[in-house]
Amino acid sequence: MPKVTGLEGVVAAETNIGLVDGEKGHLVYRGYWAKDLALGYDFEAVAYLLLNGTLPNESELDSFTKALSSNRELPAHVKAIIDLLPAEMEMMSVIRTAISSMGDSFTQWPPTIDQAIRIISILPTIIAYRYHQTANTAFVAPNPSLGHVANYLYMLTGKEPNTAHVRALNAYFILTMEHGMNAGTFAARTIISTQSEIASAISGAVGAMKGPLHGGAPSEVIQMLNEIGDISNAEAWMRDVLSSGGRLMGFGHRVYKTRDPRAVALREVTSHLIGEDPWFNFAFEVENTAIRLLEEYKPGRRLYTNVEFYAAAVLSAVEMPTELFTATFTASRVVGWTSHLLEQVAINRIFRPQSIYTGEMPE
Amino acid sequence: MPKVTGLEGVVAAETNIGLVDGEKGHLVYRGYWAKDLALGYDFEAVAYLLLNGTLPNESELDSFTKALSSNRELPAHVKAIIDLLPAEMEMMSVIRTAISSMGDSFTQWPPTIDQAIRIISILPTIIAYRYHQTANTAFVAPNPSLGHVANYLYMLTGKEPNTAHVRALNAYFILTMEHGMNAGTFAARTIISTQSEIASAISGAVGAMKGPLHGGAPSEVIQMLNEIGDISNAEAWMRDVLSSGGRLMGFGHRVYKTRDPRAVALREVTSHLIGEDPWFNFAFEVENTAIRLLEEYKPGRRLYTNVEFYAAAVLSAVEMPTELFTATFTASRVVGWTSHLLEQVAINRIFRPQSIYTGEMPE
Repeated sequence: MPKVTGLEGVVAAETNIGLVDGEKGHLVYRGYWAKDLALGYDFEAVAYLLLNGTLPNESELDSFTKALSSNRELPAHVKAIIDLLPAEMEMMSVIRTAISSMGDSFTQWPPTIDQAIRIISILPTIIAYRYHQTANTAFVAPNPSLGHVANYLYMLTGKEPNTAHVRALNAYFILTMEHGMNAGTFAARTIISTQSEIASAISGAVGAMKGPLHGGAPSEVIQMLNEIGDISNAEAWMRDVLSSGGRLMGFGHRVYKTRDPRAVALREVTSHLIGEDPWFNFAFEVENTAIRLLEEYKPGRRLYTNVEFYAAAVLSAVEMPTELFTATFTASRVVGWTSHLLEQVAINRIFRPQSIYTGEMPE
Repeated sequence: MPKVTGLEGVVAAETNIGLVDGEKGHLVYRGYWAKDLALGYDFEAVAYLLLNGTLPNESELDSFTKALSSNRELPAHVKAIIDLLPAEMEMMSVIRTAISSMGDSFTQWPPTIDQAIRIISILPTIIAYRYHQTANTAFVAPNPSLGHVANYLYMLTGKEPNTAHVRALNAYFILTMEHGMNAGTFAARTIISTQSEIASAISGAVGAMKGPLHGGAPSEVIQMLNEIGDISNAEAWMRDVLSSGGRLMGFGHRVYKTRDPRAVALREVTSHLIGEDPWFNFAFEVENTAIRLLEEYKPGRRLYTNVEFYAAAVLSAVEMPTELFTATFTASRVVGWTSHLLEQVAINRIFRPQSIYTGEMPE
């Protein structure tokens, strides 16, 4: 069998969790359009769907929500470990280490929904705790009366977030929870396939997400938006970039050859929120200009708005610090990762591909 | 393309590092028979070979040896973190967390030989530090005048190990350094392919090795040898197991359908050491009996002695505590992992296979 660099096009697993169809611009979670879920549901309901396979009824949602909110506290040793990590350590490495440090008798093979809930619940707290520690500001304890997304913003800012921000960030979380066999998901499934534990698989996935080829560089979109500064400058700024052969950040995607369904959904969510935050309107107008100019400068290239563009707009609107963008992406994607671990357990076959030896043979 | 469960038979990468040919019983590192390397070289020379592609000359070996011995000290924060980890945490989870906690500006993308040396050097110290902390015995600081393998034994026992033990363990280290695209190596390459850092990739690989389908269960061989107790009981004990349909531990391998070259080499190394330690003779005799009985009870099944059998004999002879077997395997395999990371950097293509969605479609 010929080598396939990066395993491109190789099918590593069957999955009931999600479908990514880049040609058609489809993103499906468990039989539902991700877009519909983002517009109509809360984080908790969609996390339940990905983990369990069906949307929850009222009492299922209620107990799942309670389980998520009651697992947010950091164990004392995890706090102490985060305190010890070098100040220069990047947030993604902090998350990787903190999750790894949670490996105990509760997290052992096989992965369970209760283990998944624990990791999903605690991830925002790890981020917020480290954020305040680095910023030398006081840690804000989780507020069990708030939902998962609202509580994350609350822990970062110390104030109850406004409804428009929670709605936008909720949609961002839902739309980035799951995305097929990406490197993080694949690393997680490979690691758990040895019958290791959830802490191994998720810390491995976090390690993969840390790489810019996976976790992305959403800060580049922010930088572009900041440089544009005002919508009246957008066209001139972009013409400058495009005519000198540069790229507009937030357009084009390796997988999606049509409109990125996550960008479409985030555009729709934020369109309902225009007036609530100046970022939403600004992003809208910049996008319209960019699409028009890309058609003019790069016709036929199929460069559509990708999720990073609207992610940057939403994360900026909610005043998420730029250095937490990849970490926030991780806090949503962990739902997909843990769902894949539960699915992998049922297959229970170790990932053990081949390599071709291209070196010399002994005489 | 059809799904291949566990990617069996799929070629994930070309590699110059090693060849595993299970049908022929071949194990080659960089153009040399692993067996010859195990019989004729020290850990340092073979680690240099795997990382660099050629055996070192005298001055290269000298400076590589010095680099390895001068990187053994644990940073203060890593010690403090190990101290904080729950007493119930398994050693493999401790190693995973300690390596993850070393992610700093030095360990960032791309992986380098200097980074690899740091991780390879420090791994035995992590094990020894945790071992003494758990046992409530005093940590023994690394001894820079000892080689990598001798120092590992020294840190565990506090006394200079005897030459026969060092020779046997040195062969064990060399023979288990590298073994193609196993789940740990594959996880490490997947994680680094996102342009993440060495700390992410190695902690991910350690997480994969923690699973018994990868890291193995060498303690099962020990248990068997302990139950046999004396060579005079071997035949009766094994006939009991085999006639009741049981398995003999340490025989048969998923990949090797002939004699496992690592077992052959360890058998040869230990054959020179008979008389030095009663374990070597005992293992020899048990193996001979087992092979004879397997031929009688399971003819044609090609159940040959695997590496775990002689690994158990060697590790027992050097008085390695059973709970450190998988960790010791990790301390050798990290050489292969880091070599693969250096190779993956040159390819620099993200692992991003496909999945087939088998769930429902929205209406």
